Amino acid sequence: MAVSVISYLENSCLQWAAVDGEKATPLGAFPSLNQFLLNTSIAEIKQTLQTTDASLKLDELDIQSPVTEPCRIICQGTNYLDHLEETGAKAKDQPYNLLFAKDASTLAPAVGNLHRPANVQLLDYELELGLVIKKDIKQPTTITNANLPDFIAGIVIANDVSARGIQISQEQWFKGKSFRGFCPVGPYLCLLEDEDFDKLDNLELELKVNGETRQKVNTSLMIFKPAETLTEISTIFNLARGDLLLTGTPGGVALQPPSALKIKLATLFLSPHKRSQKFIQGQLKVSNYLQKGDMIEARITDVENSLNLGTQKLLCK
Amino acid sequence: MAVSVISYLENSCLQWAAVDGEKATPLGAFPSLNQFLLNTSIAEIKQTLQTTDASLKLDELDIQSPVTEPCRIICQGTNYLDHLEETGAKAKDQPYNLLFAKDASTLAPAVGNLHRPANVQLLDYELELGLVIKKDIKQPTTITNANLPDFIAGIVIANDVSARGIQISQEQWFKGKSFRGFCPVGPYLCLLEDEDFDKLDNLELELKVNGETRQKVNTSLMIFKPAETLTEISTIFNLARGDLLLTGTPGGVALQPPSALKIKLATLFLSPHKRSQKFIQGQLKVSNYLQKGDMIEARITDVENSLNLGTQKLLCK
Repeated sequence: MAVSVISYLENSCLQWAAVDGEKATPLGAFPSLNQFLLNTSIAEIKQTLQTTDASLKLDELDIQSPVTEPCRIICQGTNYLDHLEETGAKAKDQPYNLLFAKDASTLAPAVGNLHRPANVQLLDYELELGLVIKKDIKQPTTITNANLPDFIAGIVIANDVSARGIQISQEQWFKGKSFRGFCPVGPYLCLLEDEDFDKLDNLELELKVNGETRQKVNTSLMIFKPAETLTEISTIFNLARGDLLLTGTPGGVALQPPSALKIKLATLFLSPHKRSQKFIQGQLKVSNYLQKGDMIEARITDVENSLNLGTQKLLCK
Repeated sequence: MAVSVISYLENSCLQWAAVDGEKATPLGAFPSLNQFLLNTSIAEIKQTLQTTDASLKLDELDIQSPVTEPCRIICQGTNYLDHLEETGAKAKDQPYNLLFAKDASTLAPAVGNLHRPANVQLLDYELELGLVIKKDIKQPTTITNANLPDFIAGIVIANDVSARGIQISQEQWFKGKSFRGFCPVGPYLCLLEDEDFDKLDNLELELKVNGETRQKVNTSLMIFKPAETLTEISTIFNLARGDLLLTGTPGGVALQPPSALKIKLATLFLSPHKRSQKFIQGQLKVSNYLQKGDMIEARITDVENSLNLGTQKLLCK
């Protein structure tokens, strides 16, 4: 059965603990997720839990992102049909797995403040299921649902926060998605055992802003699934223990791009710079972008409620 | 005065040495560029050179990329006007610094073979000046030509090898530029002293394929300069000692995109998938893409020939 862990700061040192309701059992100090995964196993954690009391109170801890810098953050773009369609595209337009990177200095705690950078007007949210890599993958490898437990240590809630003005008008998404704090992760890393992996294809994702549901999807609707995606990545570049793969966001983001016809006409008659100015002017009228004071709550759950990923609660500043 | 260093493998251990003509003086073992830069300085290297013989022969060493994984590879897109124009764009179309990431597992030695991945048809080269970051930058920082020596340790030759079919037709460039081996770096890391920094704006880049010059430019023509670019990056995400910033490639790559009119018409009448099929069909007729047996030679030099970055020599396999 899965075990949920957290990382927290104590005297500038990164500590780890196993979650048990509102309490947690200390598991020791490890400077990174990579080192934590290298030096622990679910079996050892369970043994610790049998002999050690849950002596920590969660609400007294300075909880951090369980995914730690340096690491890769690899993201799948438009990997749910409803999000693909709300961006104005069609499924047949994207017969490939769209991959991009997000800088690791975006990693941030899952509970706290989300700061809007000074020059960012169109701040958007993207709830995603995050997969934590279990061991280095340095060569082409066939990964299937059967051997997936060898390669994925666990799952996390992640928010691929995006500055749409920069992301869309500068075309390459890296900059608009790489501001410090733009990847709140956790609060819990849910470490999976073999029998938990069937649940990956039936998780419920839900993100609310000020109590209103904006995003809601079941992972069964994911287009490129984890095993297929990891197999493809393994043919291109390396992955390392502790890296993070974000599996794409569902529909319901604030972004409301112009219609396909409007985009075609703008391509024909406007310069790229004019087009992006028009785009930003249009989006500034969209009310769903994050504003100061907005409360963003995100959850990922399984039907039996056996996996505990915690709840993200971010106040937009 | 600048000092050139190499890293090389000996008994599976990464060693470092200072270059002196065809020979080199050992500087010790450090597992990464980060550790090498942390534990050495040009002054210390010069002291070593006064007391130690150049006992190593360069042509007997297994020379590696002096930039080592894990690290960031941050790239500036279309940062020379002639390259911007050959892609079909105009300067006014890009009033911003186009940034994207390349995976660190692309790092490869500067001399040896460049392997074309099985499913890559349109293999292209991009000679770039690479800047090696000297110390962590974790907050917005004003970097000017005056304080640049505090932030840049040295310079390298880099080739931002690109799979154009994937890069262009999948839009986000990360995947098409992140195949293992797609970033040959070195052979030398030229460590700079304060007085060398004036030369950064007057370096000559030249890349030849089978003896024919394909790319040739002076860094004075760079659009977004190093100090300005690092200042901007510092407002977005972190940089760490040993990270690599690629400052963009000049004109002369193999890629020959369709005319602006053709692109507009294709946008109007073809689906994105059809457009990318058309693009690949058109590019397959371009003869400059790298073929098996091609020899790619790249140099970066200063006018006085006082900076020694070595020569890249790659045989396309």
